[in-house]
Amino acid sequence: MEKKTLLTHCTDKPGLIAKITNICYKHQLNIIHNNEYVDNTSGHFFMRTELEGYFNDATLTADLDQALPEGAKYKLIGSSRKKIVILVTKEAHCLGDILIKSYDGSLDVDIAAVIGNYDKLQTLTERFDIPYHCVSHDGLNRQEHEQKMLEVIDQYQPDYIVLAKYMRVLTPTFVEKYHHRIINIHHSFLPAFIGAKPYQQAYERGVKIIGATAHFVTDDLDEGPIIKQDVIPVDHTFSAQDMAQAGRDVEKNVLSKALANVLNDKVFVYGNKTVIL
Amino acid sequence: MEKKTLLTHCTDKPGLIAKITNICYKHQLNIIHNNEYVDNTSGHFFMRTELEGYFNDATLTADLDQALPEGAKYKLIGSSRKKIVILVTKEAHCLGDILIKSYDGSLDVDIAAVIGNYDKLQTLTERFDIPYHCVSHDGLNRQEHEQKMLEVIDQYQPDYIVLAKYMRVLTPTFVEKYHHRIINIHHSFLPAFIGAKPYQQAYERGVKIIGATAHFVTDDLDEGPIIKQDVIPVDHTFSAQDMAQAGRDVEKNVLSKALANVLNDKVFVYGNKTVIL
Amino acid sequence: MEKKTLLTHCTDKPGLIAKITNICYKHQLNIIHNNEYVDNTSGHFFMRTELEGYFNDATLTADLDQALPEGAKYKLIGSSRKKIVILVTKEAHCLGDILIKSYDGSLDVDIAAVIGNYDKLQTLTERFDIPYHCVSHDGLNRQEHEQKMLEVIDQYQPDYIVLAKYMRVLTPTFVEKYHHRIINIHHSFLPAFIGAKPYQQAYERGVKIIGATAHFVTDDLDEGPIIKQDVIPVDHTFSAQDMAQAGRDVEKNVLSKALANVLNDKVFVYGNKTVIL
Amino acid sequence: MEKKTLLTHCTDKPGLIAKITNICYKHQLNIIHNNEYVDNTSGHFFMRTELEGYFNDATLTADLDQALPEGAKYKLIGSSRKKIVILVTKEAHCLGDILIKSYDGSLDVDIAAVIGNYDKLQTLTERFDIPYHCVSHDGLNRQEHEQKMLEVIDQYQPDYIVLAKYMRVLTPTFVEKYHHRIINIHHSFLPAFIGAKPYQQAYERGVKIIGATAHFVTDDLDEGPIIKQDVIPVDHTFSAQDMAQAGRDVEKNVLSKALANVLNDKVFVYGNKTVIL
Repeated sequence: MEKKTLLTHCTDKPGLIAKITNICYKHQLNIIHNNEYVDNTSGHFFMRTELEGYFNDATLTADLDQALPEGAKYKLIGSSRKKIVILVTKEAHCLGDILIKSYDGSLDVDIAAVIGNYDKLQTLTERFDIPYHCVSHDGLNRQEHEQKMLEVIDQYQPDYIVLAKYMRVLTPTFVEKYHHRIINIHHSFLPAFIGAKPYQQAYERGVKIIGATAHFVTDDLDEGPIIKQDVIPVDHTFSAQDMAQAGRDVEKNVLSKALANVLNDKVFVYGNKTVIL
Repeated sequence: MEKKTLLTHCTDKPGLIAKITNICYKHQLNIIHNNEYVDNTSGHFFMRTELEGYFNDATLTADLDQALPEGAKYKLIGSSRKKIVILVTKEAHCLGDILIKSYDGSLDVDIAAVIGNYDKLQTLTERFDIPYHCVSHDGLNRQEHEQKMLEVIDQYQPDYIVLAKYMRVLTPTFVEKYHHRIINIHHSFLPAFIGAKPYQQAYERGVKIIGATAHFVTDDLDEGPIIKQDVIPVDHTFSAQDMAQAGRDVEKNVLSKALANVLNDKVFVYGNKTVIL
Repeated sequence: MEKKTLLTHCTDKPGLIAKITNICYKHQLNIIHNNEYVDNTSGHFFMRTELEGYFNDATLTADLDQALPEGAKYKLIGSSRKKIVILVTKEAHCLGDILIKSYDGSLDVDIAAVIGNYDKLQTLTERFDIPYHCVSHDGLNRQEHEQKMLEVIDQYQPDYIVLAKYMRVLTPTFVEKYHHRIINIHHSFLPAFIGAKPYQQAYERGVKIIGATAHFVTDDLDEGPIIKQDVIPVDHTFSAQDMAQAGRDVEKNVLSKALANVLNDKVFVYGNKTVIL
Repeated sequence: MEKKTLLTHCTDKPGLIAKITNICYKHQLNIIHNNEYVDNTSGHFFMRTELEGYFNDATLTADLDQALPEGAKYKLIGSSRKKIVILVTKEAHCLGDILIKSYDGSLDVDIAAVIGNYDKLQTLTERFDIPYHCVSHDGLNRQEHEQKMLEVIDQYQPDYIVLAKYMRVLTPTFVEKYHHRIINIHHSFLPAFIGAKPYQQAYERGVKIIGATAHFVTDDLDEGPIIKQDVIPVDHTFSAQDMAQAGRDVEKNVLSKALANVLNDKVFVYGNKTVIL
């Protein structure tokens, strides 16, 4: 007996659920869990189906190809553990949370490697027996540095790349190569602050909440499809440094929860938004 | 064209979604929104299906009866506005929030009447052109008072009874008569406080959060199936009175949200829990 | 015996707390509650002192003038109930919450009048025996309309003006006249959305939280000193309309809490931020 | 120049703030930050004063002894880093969070040792170059096991003992020896669940939020003075295992925040509650 997850995304038509579940039924696959969502304004249909049984992928996909409308996209994903590469710069909080969660099994993931543009987090990473690569950007332009990063990343063939406070902007080439497979975390404020020292700006502005947003990376910096967001309350007694510390807590929690959703194949991306089933 | 919601609850079997959606398909009913949930530990299947089209209830239910497993429960609910009766004592915050939300249309409900064991909230209620009945418990035992309450309630034949800070305990007879149709709100604390003056106890205990729980009423006082819960942070600067005020805000918000779920036919009850689809 | 609140704001100097509390002590005024905050980065000192006793304002202020550093600002505020005027357009949720809270005493305020540029909320307001003025902007330019608004407002001499979803932009003249005495509520999103239909944009962007910000109005639209902020979680199942409804709940709660802080003389404004003691 | 924190707790009297700040002023100690709180119902006065300057502890305490009322308690605490010992059983999430926060400096603490009644967390601890002691309870009664634990703990003379999911009940002797110096974290539910498998009970009960409470340990199990509480939302789709995972996240966050408050000398305990300044 195997477990697989079927992700279906197509234009909405009457009877789609019936057609898909009929096929599973016909293949004697037991539906462990099924969620679907129809965006009625755009006419998009999404379904996530956890299946259990003996899979004949060829006949199953043939049946789906025949049943689903023109241009339907579906994926049949096995239950094997996902492989990620984590990119970091100097801050340990997001990396540390993922390392601990992976260590104690609360995040079921294979951390293939951690790559930083500084060596600051090498010791922490290696303490968890995970290879660390320091790829300095010293004396390199963005393209050259990214090229060296990609050489290291590609050898691991990761399912996803996690930017755990990686403080460099990625080029469209990089983003395109790992389309909707790069997850980033960044602080979020109300109102939003542009430019340097956001926590200093937040402090001067006297914000009462501090947030974090985890999203897929697109060319539009910090503006890709949102996976998870959360905030915590702060007040005037918080210094800019206190706000940054509070921000670290919410950043790590939001990134971990977003990553868990992605690793469990719960996240659909369409347009610039996500559907999480 | 009509809109109806089909709520199905039965033991889980392979192909149930297909069978039900096939029937809707055959009846040329468009599925606007479909959610289901399977509790794999107990083997319960739940599905909420919003349908649009021309309904032939007789043939539709005949098809469902034939397709669904032994002992399946389902309801086909029209889109007509639900009728509620609100029971109160002296506190205005929960009643007031429902009155305003009903007034501005953010809660789509027909408030048939408000009934209180005091007349304190009569003026507020009547300002919204809703009949208010004062049924005092003076000189009556619980059964006698409830009997008089029921005489007033029954004439309105409400779909649901909302206890908006109604501070009297209901008898099993009353609860049984409106089985899973009575919604109550009560404050909740960590840890829980038994007995009188809970906010005074919470203050003395120095709790850091104050909560509220909306639930269906069962014989087990304050222990029925939970519909909605929320909390707000408090600290040592809150007096017992401040905590009570903070509690009122969370109580009214939780009750309104729970009521909205119930009125939209999103809530299934089984065992002592709810499934909200 | 009277109760008054002393608000002190000046540049920080050693011994300020001692000096001020000594003066209260000398005047045999009992300190019921005292909070202070020093912003060490800017060197600002803030103190809120709740006093009880027999007040000789003349000698008390003379002592304070003598004791406090050059340019110190302080206010000695009596415990009389504050008077507010509420400006509205068409949405009832914020107005309704304030009306109910004032009605049941959980907000201790005198609502002198409600003024709208439409008559939609007249009935609701008058049901609470509060005068409603409809000042239509039809055929008037911004200055002309504001002039007519001010004529109505000024006759009430309010302590504060509450913009309870008043959807018109105020001119610098208006804002200046009621400097730091106008409280506004607006929805807030991560990321922020500029332009029309913010909830539609939020829906299309797939945000996971929706927030509200209550702030004092300055010339910089929606950018004055923040008094209170909060958010609620949403997800992909929320339509733009659902998000707007969820937003209404958080808007009214945030505005009420901000208003309570202002009415209790807990809010200091300096620069573009608030200190709440 | 040194930094010290003065914590004062006594019965409330007029002029206390003046007296204390006068003494600091006289000693030419600069008040960096001062917070006080008066519990008017019980007549307790609390003040936390961060001081900077050249300290003459002997004359300073002499002045305080002379100025403060009968039975006043005060502590003058240096800015040296606190030493803790962490007790664990098998769960890594709370320990891991403290290890990472200590490693990256966001928690300023000296983790002297980790002691477990199993060896499961030895590797993780030693990866951070912190000594781990496994003190098995096999074949020992509670007193015998605690005696062996104390022998290990005492050699480190910790300021505080952190129970990071240490699943053994402590005896009154142990609790008394480290009076108000033992910090525990435990899950909290609304309603509270007694007995084994709380997450299973929470699942069966269909709770909508899951919480955690950090508190000082007293003889009354899980009922000592509360330092920090928080909750996260859950729903019917959460299995008992999902709830436990969600609980781990809130447990670790609440414990870390409570620990930060304790380490920064912000927490007063009186009666069965805390005041956090």
